[in-house]
Amino acid sequence: MASNALNRYCQIMQDIEELVNDHILQSRNEQGSISKLKLLVPSVGLFFTPLPLQDAFRYQDAQRRISSRRFVAPSFNDIRLVLNTAQVMSLVRNSRLELVTFDGDVTLYDDGEVLKPEDPCIERIITMMRIGTRIGLVTAAGYTEAKEYHRRFAGLLDAIAASDHSHKLEHKLVVMGGESNFMFTYTPTAPYKLEQVPDADWRLPEMETWTHENVNALLDVAEQALRDCIKTLAIPVSVLRKSHAVGIYPEKGTRLSREILEETVLNVRQLISASLAGQRIPFCAFNGGNDVFVDIGDKSYGVMACQRYFGGIEAAKTLHVGDQFLSAGANDFKARLACCTAWIASPKETVQLLDEVVELGGHTP
Amino acid sequence: MASNALNRYCQIMQDIEELVNDHILQSRNEQGSISKLKLLVPSVGLFFTPLPLQDAFRYQDAQRRISSRRFVAPSFNDIRLVLNTAQVMSLVRNSRLELVTFDGDVTLYDDGEVLKPEDPCIERIITMMRIGTRIGLVTAAGYTEAKEYHRRFAGLLDAIAASDHSHKLEHKLVVMGGESNFMFTYTPTAPYKLEQVPDADWRLPEMETWTHENVNALLDVAEQALRDCIKTLAIPVSVLRKSHAVGIYPEKGTRLSREILEETVLNVRQLISASLAGQRIPFCAFNGGNDVFVDIGDKSYGVMACQRYFGGIEAAKTLHVGDQFLSAGANDFKARLACCTAWIASPKETVQLLDEVVELGGHTP
Amino acid sequence: MASNALNRYCQIMQDIEELVNDHILQSRNEQGSISKLKLLVPSVGLFFTPLPLQDAFRYQDAQRRISSRRFVAPSFNDIRLVLNTAQVMSLVRNSRLELVTFDGDVTLYDDGEVLKPEDPCIERIITMMRIGTRIGLVTAAGYTEAKEYHRRFAGLLDAIAASDHSHKLEHKLVVMGGESNFMFTYTPTAPYKLEQVPDADWRLPEMETWTHENVNALLDVAEQALRDCIKTLAIPVSVLRKSHAVGIYPEKGTRLSREILEETVLNVRQLISASLAGQRIPFCAFNGGNDVFVDIGDKSYGVMACQRYFGGIEAAKTLHVGDQFLSAGANDFKARLACCTAWIASPKETVQLLDEVVELGGHTP
Amino acid sequence: MASNALNRYCQIMQDIEELVNDHILQSRNEQGSISKLKLLVPSVGLFFTPLPLQDAFRYQDAQRRISSRRFVAPSFNDIRLVLNTAQVMSLVRNSRLELVTFDGDVTLYDDGEVLKPEDPCIERIITMMRIGTRIGLVTAAGYTEAKEYHRRFAGLLDAIAASDHSHKLEHKLVVMGGESNFMFTYTPTAPYKLEQVPDADWRLPEMETWTHENVNALLDVAEQALRDCIKTLAIPVSVLRKSHAVGIYPEKGTRLSREILEETVLNVRQLISASLAGQRIPFCAFNGGNDVFVDIGDKSYGVMACQRYFGGIEAAKTLHVGDQFLSAGANDFKARLACCTAWIASPKETVQLLDEVVELGGHTP
Repeated sequence: MASNALNRYCQIMQDIEELVNDHILQSRNEQGSISKLKLLVPSVGLFFTPLPLQDAFRYQDAQRRISSRRFVAPSFNDIRLVLNTAQVMSLVRNSRLELVTFDGDVTLYDDGEVLKPEDPCIERIITMMRIGTRIGLVTAAGYTEAKEYHRRFAGLLDAIAASDHSHKLEHKLVVMGGESNFMFTYTPTAPYKLEQVPDADWRLPEMETWTHENVNALLDVAEQALRDCIKTLAIPVSVLRKSHAVGIYPEKGTRLSREILEETVLNVRQLISASLAGQRIPFCAFNGGNDVFVDIGDKSYGVMACQRYFGGIEAAKTLHVGDQFLSAGANDFKARLACCTAWIASPKETVQLLDEVVELGGHTP
Repeated sequence: MASNALNRYCQIMQDIEELVNDHILQSRNEQGSISKLKLLVPSVGLFFTPLPLQDAFRYQDAQRRISSRRFVAPSFNDIRLVLNTAQVMSLVRNSRLELVTFDGDVTLYDDGEVLKPEDPCIERIITMMRIGTRIGLVTAAGYTEAKEYHRRFAGLLDAIAASDHSHKLEHKLVVMGGESNFMFTYTPTAPYKLEQVPDADWRLPEMETWTHENVNALLDVAEQALRDCIKTLAIPVSVLRKSHAVGIYPEKGTRLSREILEETVLNVRQLISASLAGQRIPFCAFNGGNDVFVDIGDKSYGVMACQRYFGGIEAAKTLHVGDQFLSAGANDFKARLACCTAWIASPKETVQLLDEVVELGGHTP
Repeated sequence: MASNALNRYCQIMQDIEELVNDHILQSRNEQGSISKLKLLVPSVGLFFTPLPLQDAFRYQDAQRRISSRRFVAPSFNDIRLVLNTAQVMSLVRNSRLELVTFDGDVTLYDDGEVLKPEDPCIERIITMMRIGTRIGLVTAAGYTEAKEYHRRFAGLLDAIAASDHSHKLEHKLVVMGGESNFMFTYTPTAPYKLEQVPDADWRLPEMETWTHENVNALLDVAEQALRDCIKTLAIPVSVLRKSHAVGIYPEKGTRLSREILEETVLNVRQLISASLAGQRIPFCAFNGGNDVFVDIGDKSYGVMACQRYFGGIEAAKTLHVGDQFLSAGANDFKARLACCTAWIASPKETVQLLDEVVELGGHTP
Repeated sequence: MASNALNRYCQIMQDIEELVNDHILQSRNEQGSISKLKLLVPSVGLFFTPLPLQDAFRYQDAQRRISSRRFVAPSFNDIRLVLNTAQVMSLVRNSRLELVTFDGDVTLYDDGEVLKPEDPCIERIITMMRIGTRIGLVTAAGYTEAKEYHRRFAGLLDAIAASDHSHKLEHKLVVMGGESNFMFTYTPTAPYKLEQVPDADWRLPEMETWTHENVNALLDVAEQALRDCIKTLAIPVSVLRKSHAVGIYPEKGTRLSREILEETVLNVRQLISASLAGQRIPFCAFNGGNDVFVDIGDKSYGVMACQRYFGGIEAAKTLHVGDQFLSAGANDFKARLACCTAWIASPKETVQLLDEVVELGGHTP
């Protein structure tokens, strides 16, 4: 019975695989004809690569026993992991995976923590770097100084330095702070092992309009919107205004409810969108787990800036790994516009995903 | 606008309040007529008390700002907390709350942890005991010796002893282990501060059939069912057979997926239900977070045994606090048959609930 | 692509076929184990025969082009007709179809009409009678005199008489009036070609309790409930009390809304169910399209009485054809308890169904 | 209880009324801010008038007893009729209703029939004309000759002529054929009482591109698409090519299934949309009940042409009455872009609606 079920699941996966292939074909087509997938799911976006869903299903089924279960139907998590595996398979089979970018909190380390020397993702990242994959740490955390980024990523930065005496990995990893606002490159000899990258080397043409005036005008609107929310919803938080971001955060020990965080994100987003300032430059309002921030730009710009810095890596050879794809104000979702993505739910899942990258790519760890 | 929204929410709450009142009335009625609520929700059960939902909504709205939100609709958690508050209000207003029973993991302490001396629920529980409320710790953990229960509840047991020099609280708290199989009473002078209660003082007439033979026959079926699941689903676990329970658990460090845990619960439950042994005595198969166990009886019997021990406390004067009410194999759900319940999602919420009990009951903490 | 789609549909049909077979097996099983179908659809009832759904799908697909469509998914009507065909296939292949019972309005003739000599179902029914199938006309219309039934079914009764000079078809067709209250048998020599059947020849043991007192007590409750509805809902109707039924109907030309008809059915049904009179004998309250009636018994009794009259025909060799299976107060639905059923939507569909019976049974029309 | 229910319903209606008012306000606003209604229902369109839903609910409740029902919830039809009444109330209260346009089949007469002298809508339409309301008969039927339109509408045209000896109603009614392709005006002295209107008097500037070449190119694509469907779906129909339309229809007596009709509409629509010809001029592919036709333009153009002919009547003073608003290929739905609409389900409902227009407008019939 289980093998019968496996066959049916595989047929379904194959059907969807073909729908995705047809959709990729139609979207390259100039004629504007609509794919079958688009008819079924009008909001569907672009796919940068095919997805070998049947193979991926077999791979995850061996671990999660989806087809052997009689009572528990394939769950959201089963499907999410099959999609991640399919994306990894496609990237390592059809093209070289040239760039992997990571979100920080929940993706590399637990929410509010930092990368510690013993964290198991570190050796996987170094392994990938050795076989030529570039790394981007694309985080919402926005600082102008290397020190703050080192505080979060010390575990990784120090481990690279310790393992790379010949400096072959220099400039092969960047930190992109504030979604898309500050870039630092790994340099073993620099203080904190990070050196700021000159604007000319990473900023995109579309960032020309992000002038001091436009940025400030947008942050003014955002700050006012946040203050209005604080009042209406009686939220016990402080406001933090930075050069390229503004946000609210509670005292240590206070937890804001998911409902209040999402209400604030949606409110602020609507008010900024309806303002003139919000129509001049892109922004993202996001739920940071226990805070709400408005950043200039978003992770699609952050990833594209990494692609540019590393010499013009294509979307179809880039993978962004993150945990924020669903809720109101999920900031990793925007990366979907710039590259392939993997949606993980914990740092442990990130480690498993990196193991798949190495295993399916035929590398020895 | 917010006050307009609050009024509409309150009207809805009042409507449901009246539906519940009508349902209580009809269910006391001999004539077998069906309440409006039963027509709307055919699976609805019994309510032991009215629920002042309108007042409870106002109380939670002041904290969660439900009616001030424009984008985020009332969520599952909003409603769950309104229902908890309504239940507490009803219990402390209309009758004396004579017995509170608690689940252990996730309810009193984090999953897999123990009660520590500094845990904030401890002082609340002692406060309630001082004003005459009896306490039951109704846990799935099943041991025959006091030592093991003390290991989990030491923080509370020692704190009671330290604060109660005159021994007024002796025998005012019991531990009910294995859902409904072992009872120990708080005795400051006993080793581990717990003394086993003689069967005659707590066992229910309906437990007469729980003979050694019937229990073993059921556990044999359960064990075989668990072993079949292990094989079919290739689950990396060991089997543990006890006197009144049998279960599976993985090595430390291994996490079983929710899907596998639920599949096992549902499989095992169906196989036992279809067996002769499973029709002779009650059992519960439950998902313990990272293990699956089958216990004899369930928490409805556990709570009823506590009610009996304390001299026959009524369902309408008993509150069970737990976190397992929803998923396949949620063992707190069964308590609903024996008493009022509060569904909490974390030890922190248990503390808030106890604060409501004290505050709404007009006591000073 | 269409042949690929056809294969997938057929696989699904085969899966459901197997679920039904397993359900039939489990329901014959003494052990009380639950079928997979019951787990998926807890309210599922009994199947008297297997259903060759795959073959039936191919048959209907040739006519309705389900698998060739790209935009319009299989509809409720597609599925209903596949199920009808599967039921017919099963009946004519696996056993002799010994009895076919028909509803009147919408099934044999348009709502409110009568059977006319030229109606195309007539020759089909006579063909079936010639090959030995018994016929029952199981109608809600309830009269004590043959004349009234002849008024409705004259087209058929006269055509049988005209074609059957040797009187071979005598007593091979019955009319069951008032759902399950009056039986007349086809007799070419009787006035109106119908002769009342003595109670002893058709009444079921379970009808013993349908005494004059019990019937009247129930109709009293029903009449009062109807009068209450008329008042509350201001329905412009008259009340009609008969010996075995009571109902309401509007003046000619007035149409009652579906909502008012269903509200009345549900109201009346609940009030009767909650009464003592309603617990003594079975009844059915139904929406007659533009009237609401309460009858004693229901069509399950009506069909069983036909089965009895014709010498004890089994459920698995009986087919009831009707149009009322879905809405509140759908009276054909009850026949499902006594035999196989086909759900048609118009007299035209009844004709098609009878053509399938003849064609698939290998008979020449 | 009923009056309590009525109050709750009225509050809900008032809430929606306010949402519509806010939406009208926001859509007149230049700033591009989004209304609350748009947030709730992103696909919502424009409203030309406010909708007094509360008053309309009370009006329909008196007839349909919505708030007195306990079992049957407000249905789709209840809501549809409340919306129609609200639209009529708004039109007759806030502004003069200057133009009423009607679909033909199902709206003025039963499907496939013609207007007969005794049809009750006729006197209502004449009453409205007498108080100054202009009438448009906007039908999919497309002919170049007056005779054919007279065949359908003779009942009305002859009745107007008979009642209007002073010729005051001349040119106060037009027939718009083929959705938006041919206009004839009521002229008592003309043959068939209809006179073709010169293009200059009714054609819209946006119809400039509807050249002979563009029309033919589109109809060529449409004809090919229809022929492909006939083959793929094996539909037993003939193709009819006219000057401004092309379609398929079965022999008399053959009924096409809804599924086949909709599949054809959706297929043809997609193929035309993806063609160059389909991007040059507007078209509509619609399900005519038992045929499928592709017309040039659609009813929004048809209604706008009527508005133009009568001297530039505004959207907010025009009401289109039709029955095709829901299914794939519902051609009245497009009128929503040009004016207010009422969605009726039968000619009988059209008569009731016209009675409301007269009654609520304070006129005596």
